[in-house]
Amino acid sequence: MDGFAARYPAVAHTFVAALDDDVSLDDEAAHHLSRVRRVRSGDVITAADGRGRWRPYAVANVRPGAVDLRAQQPPVDEPRLEPRLVVAFALTKGAKPDLVVQKLTELGVDGVTVVAARRSIPRWSVERAGAAVARLGRIAREAAVQSRRARLPEVDGVLPVSDLERRPGLVVADPEGGDPASLPAPSTGEWVLLVGPEGGFAPDEAAALDGDRLRLAPHVLRAETAAIAGAALLATKRTQAPEPPA
Amino acid sequence: MDGFAARYPAVAHTFVAALDDDVSLDDEAAHHLSRVRRVRSGDVITAADGRGRWRPYAVANVRPGAVDLRAQQPPVDEPRLEPRLVVAFALTKGAKPDLVVQKLTELGVDGVTVVAARRSIPRWSVERAGAAVARLGRIAREAAVQSRRARLPEVDGVLPVSDLERRPGLVVADPEGGDPASLPAPSTGEWVLLVGPEGGFAPDEAAALDGDRLRLAPHVLRAETAAIAGAALLATKRTQAPEPPA
Repeated sequence: MDGFAARYPAVAHTFVAALDDDVSLDDEAAHHLSRVRRVRSGDVITAADGRGRWRPYAVANVRPGAVDLRAQQPPVDEPRLEPRLVVAFALTKGAKPDLVVQKLTELGVDGVTVVAARRSIPRWSVERAGAAVARLGRIAREAAVQSRRARLPEVDGVLPVSDLERRPGLVVADPEGGDPASLPAPSTGEWVLLVGPEGGFAPDEAAALDGDRLRLAPHVLRAETAAIAGAALLATKRTQAPEPPA
Repeated sequence: MDGFAARYPAVAHTFVAALDDDVSLDDEAAHHLSRVRRVRSGDVITAADGRGRWRPYAVANVRPGAVDLRAQQPPVDEPRLEPRLVVAFALTKGAKPDLVVQKLTELGVDGVTVVAARRSIPRWSVERAGAAVARLGRIAREAAVQSRRARLPEVDGVLPVSDLERRPGLVVADPEGGDPASLPAPSTGEWVLLVGPEGGFAPDEAAALDGDRLRLAPHVLRAETAAIAGAALLATKRTQAPEPPA
Protein backbone atom coordinates (compact mmCIF):
# COMPACT_ATOMS: atom_id res chain seq x y z
CA MET A 1 0.00 0.00 0.00
CA ASP A 2 1.77 3.11 -1.16
CA GLY A 3 -0.89 5.36 0.26
CA PHE A 4 -2.19 6.85 -2.95
CA ALA A 5 -5.93 7.20 -2.67
CA ALA A 6 -6.01 7.30 -6.46
CA ARG A 7 -4.97 3.64 -6.67
CA TYR A 8 -7.40 2.29 -4.09
CA PRO A 9 -10.12 0.18 -5.74
CA ALA A 10 -13.01 2.54 -5.08
CA VAL A 11 -15.87 3.64 -7.29
CA ALA A 12 -15.71 7.29 -6.27
CA HIS A 13 -13.91 9.85 -4.12
CA THR A 14 -15.02 12.75 -1.99
CA PHE A 15 -13.81 15.27 0.57
CA VAL A 16 -15.11 15.33 4.14
CA ALA A 17 -14.60 17.69 7.07
CA ALA A 18 -13.34 14.90 9.35
CA LEU A 19 -12.47 11.26 8.76
CA ASP A 20 -14.81 9.90 11.46
CA ASP A 21 -15.92 6.27 11.59
CA ASP A 22 -19.41 7.33 10.51
CA VAL A 23 -19.93 10.23 8.15
CA SER A 24 -23.15 11.66 6.77
CA LEU A 25 -22.92 13.85 3.70
CA ASP A 26 -25.81 16.13 2.82
CA ASP A 27 -24.35 18.76 0.54
CA GLU A 28 -22.80 18.88 -2.92
CA ALA A 29 -20.73 15.83 -2.05
CA ALA A 30 -23.89 13.79 -1.46
CA HIS A 31 -25.31 15.03 -4.73
CA HIS A 32 -22.11 14.13 -6.58
CA LEU A 33 -22.01 10.62 -5.12
CA SER A 34 -25.69 9.76 -5.50
CA ARG A 35 -26.60 11.55 -8.73
CA VAL A 36 -23.35 11.76 -10.72
CA ARG A 37 -21.49 8.67 -9.53
CA ARG A 38 -24.72 6.80 -8.71
CA VAL A 39 -23.25 4.99 -5.72
CA ARG A 40 -25.39 2.39 -3.93
CA SER A 41 -25.30 0.77 -0.52
CA GLY A 42 -22.28 -1.47 -0.26
CA ASP A 43 -20.14 0.43 -2.76
CA VAL A 44 -16.67 1.35 -1.54
CA ILE A 45 -15.48 4.93 -1.95
CA THR A 46 -12.54 6.92 -0.62
CA ALA A 47 -12.85 10.14 1.35
CA ALA A 48 -10.05 12.60 2.12
CA ASP A 49 -9.69 15.53 4.47
CA GLY A 50 -7.95 17.70 1.85
CA ARG A 51 -4.82 17.87 4.02
CA GLY A 52 -3.24 14.52 3.14
CA ARG A 53 -5.25 11.89 5.04
CA TRP A 54 -7.84 9.62 3.47
CA ARG A 55 -9.89 6.60 4.39
CA PRO A 56 -11.91 3.91 2.59
CA TYR A 57 -15.64 3.92 3.37
CA ALA A 58 -18.55 1.70 2.45
CA VAL A 59 -21.76 3.42 1.44
CA ALA A 60 -24.18 2.52 4.23
CA ASN A 61 -27.25 4.30 2.96
CA VAL A 62 -28.36 6.56 0.12
CA ARG A 63 -31.26 8.77 1.21
CA PRO A 64 -32.87 11.71 -0.62
CA GLY A 65 -30.22 14.43 -0.49
CA ALA A 66 -27.89 12.50 1.80
CA VAL A 67 -25.36 9.68 1.76
CA ASP A 68 -24.20 7.82 4.89
CA LEU A 69 -20.72 6.31 5.00
CA ARG A 70 -19.14 3.71 7.32
CA ALA A 71 -15.35 3.50 7.59
CA GLN A 72 -13.73 0.27 6.39
CA GLN A 73 -10.16 0.84 7.61
CA PRO A 74 -8.18 3.34 9.69
CA PRO A 75 -7.15 6.56 7.95
CA VAL A 76 -4.09 6.46 5.70
CA ASP A 77 -1.46 9.20 5.35
CA GLU A 78 -0.83 10.07 1.73
CA PRO A 79 2.92 10.44 1.11
CA ARG A 80 3.94 13.90 0.02
CA LEU A 81 5.59 14.39 -3.33
CA GLU A 82 8.91 16.23 -3.24
CA PRO A 83 9.77 18.86 -4.16
CA ARG A 84 6.54 20.76 -3.62
CA LEU A 85 5.22 22.21 -6.86
CA VAL A 86 3.46 25.54 -7.25
CA VAL A 87 2.53 26.90 -10.66
CA ALA A 88 2.08 30.64 -11.01
CA PHE A 89 0.48 31.74 -14.26
CA ALA A 90 -0.19 35.17 -15.64
CA LEU A 91 -3.67 36.15 -16.64
CA THR A 92 -3.69 36.66 -20.35
CA LYS A 93 -5.99 37.60 -23.18
CA GLY A 94 -8.04 34.60 -24.18
CA ALA A 95 -6.52 32.57 -21.37
CA LYS A 96 -8.55 29.84 -19.80
CA PRO A 97 -7.81 29.99 -16.06
CA ASP A 98 -10.53 27.40 -15.38
CA LEU A 99 -8.90 24.93 -17.72
CA VAL A 100 -5.45 25.62 -16.26
CA VAL A 101 -6.57 25.12 -12.65
CA GLN A 102 -8.44 21.92 -13.53
CA LYS A 103 -5.48 20.38 -15.35
CA LEU A 104 -2.87 21.49 -12.80
CA THR A 105 -4.94 19.91 -10.04
CA GLU A 106 -5.14 16.63 -11.93
CA LEU A 107 -1.36 16.77 -12.40
CA GLY A 108 -0.86 16.98 -8.63
CA VAL A 109 0.40 20.52 -8.01
CA ASP A 110 0.42 21.76 -4.40
CA GLY A 111 -0.55 25.28 -5.31
CA VAL A 112 -1.78 27.51 -8.09
CA THR A 113 -1.06 31.24 -7.99
CA VAL A 114 -2.72 33.68 -10.34
CA VAL A 115 -0.34 36.45 -11.38
CA ALA A 116 -0.91 39.82 -13.05
CA ALA A 117 1.93 40.70 -15.43
CA ARG A 118 2.40 44.00 -17.23
CA ARG A 119 0.94 42.53 -20.41
CA SER A 120 -1.82 40.67 -18.62
CA ILE A 121 -5.31 41.22 -19.98
CA PRO A 122 -7.77 41.49 -18.36
CA ARG A 123 -6.76 43.36 -15.26
CA TRP A 124 -9.10 42.18 -12.56
CA SER A 125 -10.25 44.64 -9.91
CA VAL A 126 -9.58 43.63 -6.31
CA GLU A 127 -13.22 42.66 -5.76
CA ARG A 128 -13.46 40.77 -9.02
CA ALA A 129 -10.14 39.06 -8.35
CA GLY A 130 -11.35 37.80 -4.98
CA ALA A 131 -14.48 36.29 -6.50
CA ALA A 132 -12.56 34.82 -9.41
CA VAL A 133 -9.96 33.17 -7.20
CA ALA A 134 -12.69 31.72 -4.98
CA ARG A 135 -14.30 30.26 -8.08
CA LEU A 136 -10.97 28.77 -9.19
CA GLY A 137 -10.73 27.18 -5.74
CA ARG A 138 -14.04 25.41 -6.36
CA ILE A 139 -12.80 24.20 -9.74
CA ALA A 140 -9.67 22.84 -8.04
CA ARG A 141 -11.84 20.99 -5.52
CA GLU A 142 -13.94 19.38 -8.28
CA ALA A 143 -10.79 18.34 -10.14
CA ALA A 144 -9.29 16.95 -6.92
CA VAL A 145 -12.40 14.77 -6.50
CA GLN A 146 -12.06 13.55 -10.08
CA SER A 147 -8.34 12.82 -9.58
CA ARG A 148 -8.84 11.26 -6.13
CA ARG A 149 -6.36 13.51 -4.43
CA ALA A 150 -5.94 13.48 -0.65
CA ARG A 151 -4.69 17.08 -0.64
CA LEU A 152 -6.46 20.09 -2.06
CA PRO A 153 -4.16 22.48 -3.88
CA GLU A 154 -3.97 26.01 -2.53
CA VAL A 155 -5.30 28.55 -5.01
CA ASP A 156 -4.30 32.14 -4.40
CA GLY A 157 -3.73 35.46 -6.12
CA VAL A 158 -3.87 37.83 -7.80
CA LEU A 159 -0.19 38.73 -7.17
CA PRO A 160 1.97 41.16 -9.14
CA VAL A 161 4.91 39.48 -10.88
CA SER A 162 7.29 41.48 -8.69
CA ASP A 163 6.14 39.43 -5.68
CA LEU A 164 7.71 36.36 -7.28
CA GLU A 165 10.97 37.93 -8.49
CA ARG A 166 13.15 36.56 -5.71
CA ARG A 167 10.98 33.63 -4.67
CA PRO A 168 13.21 30.67 -3.71
CA GLY A 169 12.85 27.78 -6.14
CA LEU A 170 11.63 30.05 -8.94
CA VAL A 171 11.58 28.43 -12.39
CA VAL A 172 10.63 30.64 -15.33
CA ALA A 173 9.07 29.09 -18.44
CA ASP A 174 11.23 30.43 -21.27
CA PRO A 175 11.57 29.26 -24.91
CA GLU A 176 15.32 29.95 -24.62
CA GLY A 177 15.69 28.04 -21.35
CA GLY A 178 17.22 24.67 -20.52
CA ASP A 179 15.76 21.18 -20.77
CA PRO A 180 13.85 19.65 -17.86
CA ALA A 181 16.58 17.01 -17.51
CA SER A 182 19.11 19.67 -16.55
CA LEU A 183 16.88 21.50 -14.05
CA PRO A 184 18.43 21.23 -10.59
CA ALA A 185 16.35 20.19 -7.58
CA PRO A 186 15.35 23.24 -5.54
CA SER A 187 17.35 23.75 -2.35
CA THR A 188 14.17 24.95 -0.67
CA GLY A 189 12.18 21.80 -1.41
CA GLU A 190 9.76 23.73 -3.60
CA TRP A 191 9.56 24.68 -7.25
CA VAL A 192 7.54 27.72 -8.22
CA LEU A 193 7.03 27.53 -11.98
CA LEU A 194 6.15 30.92 -13.42
CA VAL A 195 4.40 31.06 -16.80
CA GLY A 196 4.11 34.45 -18.48
CA PRO A 197 1.27 35.96 -20.44
CA GLU A 198 0.67 35.70 -24.19
CA GLY A 199 3.53 37.67 -25.72
CA GLY A 200 5.78 37.09 -22.72
CA PHE A 201 6.89 39.29 -19.87
CA ALA A 202 7.94 42.87 -20.47
CA PRO A 203 11.76 42.99 -20.84
CA ASP A 204 12.44 44.68 -17.49
CA GLU A 205 9.92 42.39 -15.81
CA ALA A 206 11.72 39.31 -17.23
CA ALA A 207 15.16 40.65 -16.31
CA ALA A 208 14.14 40.99 -12.67
CA LEU A 209 13.09 37.34 -12.38
CA ASP A 210 15.82 35.58 -10.42
CA GLY A 211 15.20 31.92 -11.30
CA ASP A 212 16.15 28.98 -13.52
CA ARG A 213 14.87 29.14 -17.10
CA LEU A 214 13.02 26.09 -18.40
CA ARG A 215 12.15 25.37 -22.02
CA LEU A 216 8.85 23.49 -22.25
CA ALA A 217 8.51 22.63 -25.94
CA PRO A 218 10.13 23.31 -29.33
CA HIS A 219 7.22 25.40 -30.63
CA VAL A 220 5.26 28.40 -29.41
CA LEU A 221 2.79 27.43 -26.69
CA ARG A 222 -0.36 29.25 -25.71
CA ALA A 223 -0.10 30.44 -22.12
CA GLU A 224 -2.49 27.78 -20.81
CA THR A 225 -0.64 25.02 -22.67
CA ALA A 226 2.65 26.17 -21.17
CA ALA A 227 1.24 25.96 -17.64
CA ILE A 228 -0.15 22.46 -18.22
CA ALA A 229 2.93 21.14 -20.03
CA GLY A 230 5.22 22.61 -17.36
CA ALA A 231 3.27 20.95 -14.56
CA ALA A 232 3.38 17.62 -16.41
CA LEU A 233 7.15 17.88 -16.91
CA LEU A 234 7.95 18.81 -13.31
CA ALA A 235 5.47 16.25 -11.94
CA THR A 236 7.57 13.41 -13.31
CA LYS A 237 10.63 14.76 -11.50
CA ARG A 238 8.92 14.51 -8.10
CA THR A 239 9.32 11.55 -5.79
CA GLN A 240 7.51 10.30 -2.73
CA ALA A 241 8.76 11.79 0.49
CA PRO A 242 10.26 9.23 2.86
CA GLU A 243 8.05 8.19 5.79
CA PRO A 244 8.51 10.52 8.75
CA PRO A 245 10.28 8.83 11.71
CA ALA A 246 7.76 7.18 14.04
CA MET B 1 20.12 29.58 -37.14
CA ASP B 2 18.65 26.32 -35.95
CA GLY B 3 15.88 26.42 -38.48
CA PHE B 4 12.91 26.72 -36.13
CA ALA B 5 10.36 29.01 -37.69
CA ALA B 6 8.96 29.53 -34.18
CA ARG B 7 12.10 31.44 -33.15
CA TYR B 8 12.34 33.71 -36.16
CA PRO B 9 11.51 37.31 -35.25
CA ALA B 10 8.23 37.55 -37.14
CA VAL B 11 4.92 39.09 -36.20
CA ALA B 12 2.82 36.23 -37.60
CA HIS B 13 2.92 32.88 -39.36
CA THR B 14 0.89 31.28 -42.12
CA PHE B 15 0.78 28.30 -44.45
CA VAL B 16 1.08 28.65 -48.21
CA ALA B 17 0.74 26.21 -51.11
CA ALA B 18 4.23 26.98 -52.44
CA LEU B 19 7.13 29.05 -51.10
CA ASP B 20 7.46 31.24 -54.20
CA ASP B 21 9.32 34.56 -54.19
CA ASP B 22 6.00 36.39 -54.49
CA VAL B 23 2.86 35.03 -52.86
CA SER B 24 -0.66 36.43 -52.84
CA LEU B 25 -3.05 35.16 -50.21
CA ASP B 26 -6.77 35.65 -50.67
CA ASP B 27 -8.41 33.10 -48.40
CA GLU B 28 -8.63 32.44 -44.68
CA ALA B 29 -4.91 33.06 -44.38
CA ALA B 30 -5.33 36.60 -45.71
CA HIS B 31 -8.19 37.16 -43.31
CA HIS B 32 -6.12 35.87 -40.38
CA LEU B 33 -3.14 38.06 -41.23
CA SER B 34 -5.03 41.26 -42.00
CA ARG B 35 -7.90 41.08 -39.52
CA VAL B 36 -6.65 38.97 -36.60
CA ARG B 37 -2.92 39.71 -36.65
CA ARG B 38 -3.42 43.15 -38.26
CA VAL B 39 -0.23 42.99 -40.30
CA ARG B 40 0.80 46.06 -42.32
CA SER B 41 3.09 46.66 -45.25
CA GLY B 42 6.68 46.11 -44.19
CA ASP B 43 5.90 43.65 -41.40
CA VAL B 44 7.91 40.44 -41.51
CA ILE B 45 6.04 37.13 -41.24
CA THR B 46 6.99 33.50 -41.76
CA ALA B 47 5.19 31.15 -44.15
CA ALA B 48 5.54 27.37 -44.27
CA ASP B 49 4.53 24.71 -46.76
CA GLY B 50 3.28 22.35 -44.04
CA ARG B 51 5.86 19.75 -45.03
CA GLY B 52 8.90 21.16 -43.22
CA ARG B 53 10.08 24.14 -45.29
CA TRP B 54 9.47 27.76 -44.39
CA ARG B 55 10.55 31.19 -45.51
CA PRO B 56 10.51 34.74 -44.15
CA TYR B 57 8.40 37.20 -46.11
CA ALA B 58 7.76 40.92 -45.91
CA VAL B 59 4.19 42.07 -46.27
CA ALA B 60 4.18 43.97 -49.57
CA ASN B 61 0.57 45.04 -49.65
CA VAL B 62 -2.65 44.59 -47.68
CA ARG B 63 -5.69 44.87 -49.95
CA PRO B 64 -9.35 44.15 -49.21
CA GLY B 65 -9.51 40.36 -48.81
CA ALA B 66 -5.92 39.81 -49.90
CA VAL B 67 -2.35 40.07 -48.64
CA ASP B 68 0.71 40.14 -50.91
CA LEU B 69 4.02 38.78 -49.65
CA ARG B 70 7.59 39.21 -50.92
CA ALA B 71 10.27 36.69 -49.87
CA GLN B 72 13.15 38.02 -47.76
CA GLN B 73 15.44 34.99 -47.80
CA PRO B 74 15.68 31.57 -49.43
CA PRO B 75 13.52 28.80 -47.91
CA VAL B 76 14.80 27.08 -44.76
CA ASP B 77 14.49 23.38 -43.95
CA GLU B 78 13.08 22.84 -40.47
CA PRO B 79 15.01 20.07 -38.71
CA ARG B 80 12.90 17.05 -37.83
CA LEU B 81 12.53 16.05 -34.22
CA GLU B 82 13.39 12.44 -33.47
CA PRO B 83 11.82 10.11 -32.68
CA ARG B 84 8.63 10.94 -34.53
CA LEU B 85 5.71 11.28 -32.15
CA VAL B 86 2.14 10.21 -32.84
CA VAL B 87 -0.53 10.37 -30.14
CA ALA B 88 -3.54 8.08 -30.49
CA PHE B 89 -6.38 8.86 -28.14
CA ALA B 90 -9.64 7.09 -27.54
CA LEU B 91 -12.89 8.95 -27.91
CA THR B 92 -14.46 9.13 -24.52
CA LYS B 93 -17.51 10.46 -22.74
CA GLY B 94 -17.08 14.15 -22.07
CA ALA B 95 -13.77 14.13 -23.92
CA LYS B 96 -12.66 17.23 -25.70
CA PRO B 97 -11.07 16.09 -28.97
CA ASP B 98 -10.81 19.72 -30.14
CA LEU B 99 -8.81 20.66 -27.06
CA VAL B 100 -6.59 17.58 -27.39
CA VAL B 101 -5.78 18.21 -31.05
CA GLN B 102 -5.05 21.88 -30.41
CA LYS B 103 -2.68 21.17 -27.52
CA LEU B 104 -0.94 18.23 -29.19
CA THR B 105 -0.26 20.39 -32.23
CA GLU B 106 1.27 23.12 -30.07
CA LEU B 107 3.43 20.47 -28.41
CA GLY B 108 4.84 19.43 -31.77
CA VAL B 109 3.41 15.97 -32.44
CA ASP B 110 3.75 14.59 -35.97
CA GLY B 111 0.39 12.89 -35.94
CA VAL B 112 -2.87 12.56 -34.05
CA THR B 113 -4.96 9.40 -34.44
CA VAL B 114 -8.48 9.15 -33.13
CA VAL B 115 -9.23 5.70 -31.74
CA ALA B 116 -12.49 3.94 -30.85
CA ALA B 117 -12.05 1.70 -27.82
CA ARG B 118 -14.63 -0.71 -26.41
CA ARG B 119 -15.57 1.78 -23.73
CA SER B 120 -15.48 4.76 -26.06
CA ILE B 121 -18.52 6.96 -26.00
CA PRO B 122 -19.79 8.23 -28.37
CA ARG B 123 -19.41 5.78 -31.20
CA TRP B 124 -19.21 7.88 -34.34
CA SER B 125 -20.78 6.55 -37.49
CA VAL B 126 -18.47 6.28 -40.49
CA GLU B 127 -19.96 9.41 -42.08
CA ARG B 128 -19.85 11.39 -38.87
CA ALA B 129 -16.31 10.20 -38.18
CA GLY B 130 -15.11 11.46 -41.54
CA ALA B 131 -16.56 14.91 -40.96
CA ALA B 132 -15.27 15.02 -37.40
CA VAL B 133 -11.73 14.07 -38.38
CA ALA B 134 -11.75 16.68 -41.15
CA ARG B 135 -12.79 19.29 -38.58
CA LEU B 136 -9.99 18.18 -36.25
CA GLY B 137 -7.60 18.65 -39.17
CA ARG B 138 -8.70 22.29 -39.45
CA ILE B 139 -8.18 22.75 -35.71
CA ALA B 140 -4.68 21.31 -36.07
CA ARG B 141 -3.96 23.77 -38.88
CA GLU B 142 -5.09 26.74 -36.78
CA ALA B 143 -2.95 25.57 -33.86
CA ALA B 144 0.03 25.06 -36.18
CA VAL B 145 -0.31 28.69 -37.29
CA GLN B 146 -0.43 29.81 -33.67
CA SER B 147 2.62 27.69 -32.80
CA ARG B 148 4.51 28.66 -35.98
CA ARG B 149 5.10 25.11 -37.05
CA ALA B 150 6.65 24.30 -40.43
CA ARG B 151 4.97 20.89 -40.53
CA LEU B 152 1.27 20.20 -40.20
CA PRO B 153 0.48 17.17 -38.07
CA GLU B 154 -1.39 14.34 -39.78
CA VAL B 155 -4.82 13.82 -38.26
CA ASP B 156 -6.48 10.51 -38.97
CA GLY B 157 -8.96 8.00 -37.64
CA VAL B 158 -11.27 6.65 -36.45
CA LEU B 159 -9.32 3.39 -35.94
CA PRO B 160 -10.26 0.45 -33.73
CA VAL B 161 -7.80 -0.15 -30.88
CA SER B 162 -6.95 -3.52 -32.41
CA ASP B 163 -5.27 -1.72 -35.33
CA LEU B 164 -2.65 -0.40 -32.89
CA GLU B 165 -2.05 -3.60 -30.88
CA ARG B 166 1.21 -4.51 -32.59
CA ARG B 167 2.20 -1.11 -33.87
CA PRO B 168 6.00 -0.69 -33.63
CA GLY B 169 6.97 1.96 -31.07
CA LEU B 170 3.68 1.59 -29.18
CA VAL B 171 3.63 3.25 -25.75
CA VAL B 172 0.52 2.77 -23.63
CA ALA B 173 -0.44 5.36 -21.02
CA ASP B 174 -0.91 3.32 -17.85
CA PRO B 175 -1.10 4.42 -14.18
CA GLU B 176 0.94 1.30 -13.29
CA GLY B 177 3.57 1.93 -15.96
CA GLY B 178 7.16 3.15 -15.76
CA ASP B 179 8.57 6.65 -15.53
CA PRO B 180 9.37 8.65 -18.67
CA ALA B 181 13.06 8.59 -17.72
CA SER B 182 13.14 4.80 -18.15
CA LEU B 183 11.29 4.70 -21.48
CA PRO B 184 13.61 3.35 -24.17
CA ALA B 185 13.99 5.10 -27.51
CA PRO B 186 11.92 3.35 -30.18
CA SER B 187 13.90 1.14 -32.56
CA THR B 188 11.57 2.27 -35.34
CA GLY B 189 12.24 5.99 -34.88
CA GLU B 190 8.62 6.62 -33.90
CA TRP B 191 6.63 6.60 -30.69
CA VAL B 192 2.91 5.97 -30.88
CA LEU B 193 1.48 6.98 -27.52
CA LEU B 194 -1.92 5.41 -26.94
CA VAL B 195 -4.24 6.99 -24.38
CA GLY B 196 -7.33 5.04 -23.36
CA PRO B 197 -10.85 6.21 -22.69
CA GLU B 198 -12.27 7.32 -19.35
CA GLY B 199 -12.32 4.17 -17.23
CA GLY B 200 -9.47 2.61 -19.22
CA PHE B 201 -9.34 -0.11 -21.81
CA ALA B 202 -11.37 -3.29 -21.39
CA PRO B 203 -9.12 -5.98 -19.80
CA ASP B 204 -8.76 -8.12 -22.93
CA GLU B 205 -8.23 -5.01 -25.02
CA ALA B 206 -5.42 -3.87 -22.68
CA ALA B 207 -3.84 -7.34 -22.59
CA ALA B 208 -3.53 -7.38 -26.37
CA LEU B 209 -1.57 -4.10 -26.48
CA ASP B 210 2.04 -5.03 -27.17
CA GLY B 211 3.89 -1.87 -26.05
CA ASP B 212 5.79 -0.14 -23.26
CA ARG B 213 3.69 1.13 -20.37
CA LEU B 214 4.19 4.76 -19.35
CA ARG B 215 2.93 6.39 -16.16
CA LEU B 216 2.05 10.04 -16.77
CA ALA B 217 1.21 11.38 -13.31
CA PRO B 218 0.65 10.24 -9.72
CA HIS B 219 -3.07 10.94 -9.76
CA VAL B 220 -6.00 10.01 -11.96
CA LEU B 221 -6.02 12.04 -15.17
CA ARG B 222 -8.96 12.80 -17.38
CA ALA B 223 -8.46 11.28 -20.81
CA GLU B 224 -7.72 14.62 -22.44
CA THR B 225 -5.23 15.57 -19.73
CA ALA B 226 -3.41 12.26 -20.20
CA ALA B 227 -3.02 12.90 -23.92
CA ILE B 228 -1.67 16.42 -23.36
CA ALA B 229 0.63 15.46 -20.47
CA GLY B 230 1.95 12.47 -22.40
CA ALA B 231 2.77 14.60 -25.42
CA ALA B 232 4.55 17.14 -23.20
CA LEU B 233 6.62 14.41 -21.54
CA LEU B 234 7.67 12.71 -24.75
CA ALA B 235 8.31 16.04 -26.51
CA THR B 236 11.17 16.78 -24.13
CA LYS B 237 12.79 13.44 -25.00
CA ARG B 238 12.99 14.34 -28.68
CA THR B 239 16.07 15.83 -30.31
CA GLN B 240 16.78 17.52 -33.60
CA ALA B 241 17.63 15.15 -36.37
CA PRO B 242 21.16 15.60 -37.75
CA GLU B 243 21.43 17.42 -41.08
CA PRO B 244 21.10 15.04 -44.00
CA PRO B 245 24.39 14.59 -45.90
CA ALA B 246 24.72 17.14 -48.70
